[in-house]
Amino acid sequence: MSELKIQRFDASQDDFGPALDRLLAWESVSDDRVNGIVDEVLARVRTEGDAAVVEYSNRFDRLSVSSMAELELGRERLQQALDNLPAPQRRALEEAAERVRRYHERQKGESWSYTEADGTLLGQQVTPMDRVGIYVPGGKAAYPSSVLMNAMPAQVAGVGEIIMVVPTPGGVLNELVLASAALAGVDRVFCIGGAQAVAALAYGTETVPRVDKIVGPGNIFVATAKKAVFGLVGIDMIAGPSEILVVCDGKTDPDWVAMDLFSQAEHDEDAQSILISPDADYLDRVEQSMLRLLPTMERREIIEISLRNRAALIKVADLDQAAEVANRVAPEHLELSVEDPQAMLAQIRHAGAIFMGRYTAESLGDYCAGPNHVLPTSGTARFSSPLGVYDFQKRSSLIQFSADGASELGEVASILARGEGLTAHARSAEYRIKKG
Amino acid sequence: MSELKIQRFDASQDDFGPALDRLLAWESVSDDRVNGIVDEVLARVRTEGDAAVVEYSNRFDRLSVSSMAELELGRERLQQALDNLPAPQRRALEEAAERVRRYHERQKGESWSYTEADGTLLGQQVTPMDRVGIYVPGGKAAYPSSVLMNAMPAQVAGVGEIIMVVPTPGGVLNELVLASAALAGVDRVFCIGGAQAVAALAYGTETVPRVDKIVGPGNIFVATAKKAVFGLVGIDMIAGPSEILVVCDGKTDPDWVAMDLFSQAEHDEDAQSILISPDADYLDRVEQSMLRLLPTMERREIIEISLRNRAALIKVADLDQAAEVANRVAPEHLELSVEDPQAMLAQIRHAGAIFMGRYTAESLGDYCAGPNHVLPTSGTARFSSPLGVYDFQKRSSLIQFSADGASELGEVASILARGEGLTAHARSAEYRIKKG
Repeated sequence: MSELKIQRFDASQDDFGPALDRLLAWESVSDDRVNGIVDEVLARVRTEGDAAVVEYSNRFDRLSVSSMAELELGRERLQQALDNLPAPQRRALEEAAERVRRYHERQKGESWSYTEADGTLLGQQVTPMDRVGIYVPGGKAAYPSSVLMNAMPAQVAGVGEIIMVVPTPGGVLNELVLASAALAGVDRVFCIGGAQAVAALAYGTETVPRVDKIVGPGNIFVATAKKAVFGLVGIDMIAGPSEILVVCDGKTDPDWVAMDLFSQAEHDEDAQSILISPDADYLDRVEQSMLRLLPTMERREIIEISLRNRAALIKVADLDQAAEVANRVAPEHLELSVEDPQAMLAQIRHAGAIFMGRYTAESLGDYCAGPNHVLPTSGTARFSSPLGVYDFQKRSSLIQFSADGASELGEVASILARGEGLTAHARSAEYRIKKG
Repeated sequence: MSELKIQRFDASQDDFGPALDRLLAWESVSDDRVNGIVDEVLARVRTEGDAAVVEYSNRFDRLSVSSMAELELGRERLQQALDNLPAPQRRALEEAAERVRRYHERQKGESWSYTEADGTLLGQQVTPMDRVGIYVPGGKAAYPSSVLMNAMPAQVAGVGEIIMVVPTPGGVLNELVLASAALAGVDRVFCIGGAQAVAALAYGTETVPRVDKIVGPGNIFVATAKKAVFGLVGIDMIAGPSEILVVCDGKTDPDWVAMDLFSQAEHDEDAQSILISPDADYLDRVEQSMLRLLPTMERREIIEISLRNRAALIKVADLDQAAEVANRVAPEHLELSVEDPQAMLAQIRHAGAIFMGRYTAESLGDYCAGPNHVLPTSGTARFSSPLGVYDFQKRSSLIQFSADGASELGEVASILARGEGLTAHARSAEYRIKKG
């Protein structure tokens, strides 16, 4: 334990900006080897369909199936998994699902339109996607909560069909994952993963229907494949390692904050946990808590590597400076463990999710508060949002001109079109201008 | 002219599905040569900054400048371009800008929250991005209307700073483009283009500030560069060639519909114009109009190539089947040139923009109706939307638990976290459970 040393910074030091940049630096690198493998998998699934998916699944997931049919699970199998759960787990999962649904209902976009004085109608029609694919990682990162968080916004949006893919290395099914799929309205499950699953969803095969959008986290092969098919289908953000930034005024129990930092660090070795406080003594106290609690943690090896490589304790002058640093980090999870979090909120411009007050443990948000736990990582909260119902709806502009409106605006369109040298555009508008 | 033959299909023919797929097939291919050039440009701008941007601009745009300062235009220069416009052009541009602004104001997302019985607050905070980049193509495709359509949603969203890049091959400035930038609230303009402009915006240089998102159309080098920096910054969709699908009941003046089809075809040789009607004679009449009008068109060479390669006239059984085909195409522009377009609307699931009724020429939407003309192409309307204010805002989840709420939900989180083997998550929640 003696070797655990967490990096310290003071936001008033001259080189704090560059030091912070180095601390945050993260780039997921798809090297040539990964790109080569993914390109081959995509090309073969595209041309050979099921046969290629079966072959890759047998090879990468150590299976021995002879057809895609053996890799499909229907609604009944999912319901069976739900029915067989121990009662406390089932109740917890159902309560989480209910809260997630209730929150996401508020995100549903509605069609709108307005009519101008001359009878011209303008608006936007909002519709759900026809069919989407949810990627769920297998093995150690198979999280039932992620099934809920990825599939339920699609269900609330009214998506016609939700297809889930989940690799089952060695043929092992995760019953909690299947039970969550039942709760979240998943229609079909294919036990496939990796780039071959992404390819099957993007191109379609004889058995796997082509989807309109693919969401969900995955390893570097999955991320590379998603980026490659982006454009042919929609994708969500490419996720980096999970991060938390806790801002504390120095008055929250240090053990609580230490455990909040651990809860990020335990995700994986690259996860990042940062604590900011204007109280230097408090940073010491939290560090002491961490040193004392670490040996008691089941996942201490992962936590320790994560903390050593990527954690930081940052001293700031005051909470205003803390907000400034938070905006520079644009963290996935931002915990405002302060007396008056609402007062700080107005200063926060960039964060995936904001956990306000001493009682709001980040892990409540991961599971059951209601908001989505799929959040923008690596500073992408500067320009992106939590996964939501809006990711499974799309909009069509509506324009209906009255004869009068078309005649009047036709003049404007004609001038602008001719200014761009697009005379077919101009003449198309001019036909609708009333003569005389 | 005699050689112009437009492809015909009948939706009732057995092989219509595959034939339609072939008609629509489009893939923008970044070949190895393009990828190689773009990779080099990105790497050099990232490490060398301004110097590399200046060097590439001199080379690719035939300039001879020695610093980035010579490539920047300030607000005054933009205002000067606006002030010097001929009065009719200025009035047309201002009316278009005013209508676009009014429509986009309706798209502005607002923060929301609700409080549960135990005092727990949940919601979402909506904030604008700090700084975005607008890519405007130079040369023949420099469209002032595109400046309005890309920049104004950002302005309405409340984006802090809007940076425009536009290449000026041979040093030629387009005054209409600059005037539009003035109207649309662009803050700074850099006369740079290609992958070097994308790189400058994504990484930042000594002079060009790093942005959070890059939007706007460009050639294959621009598209490839945007896809490469996706993740580091946000990007809009990679645009394919423009397309229109007109559904007509056979009662609109054939010349009008012919000109509407031309107005797509004149964009470029790859643009696609499709007409669907249950009235086979009407298809003939529109084709006759096209043959007669084509020789009178300024851009007839482009129109003719586009029509020959990619246009189609499709006979359907009735308007229901027309709607089905439209949903399969998911067109960028959908014109419902029918008696009762509102009745058809409910059947339309996928389209970028829907132009309803005989008077609603697509070109009105391109310039001044109000809705955005940056629309999903190549079938991507299945999962994406017109460019809008929502593309320049992002959301942060808000969660504030009361002591009671944290205690009660802590039990649920604890059960689910332990089910996933994440015990730091569980213990973090358990600390907030009231004892006794």
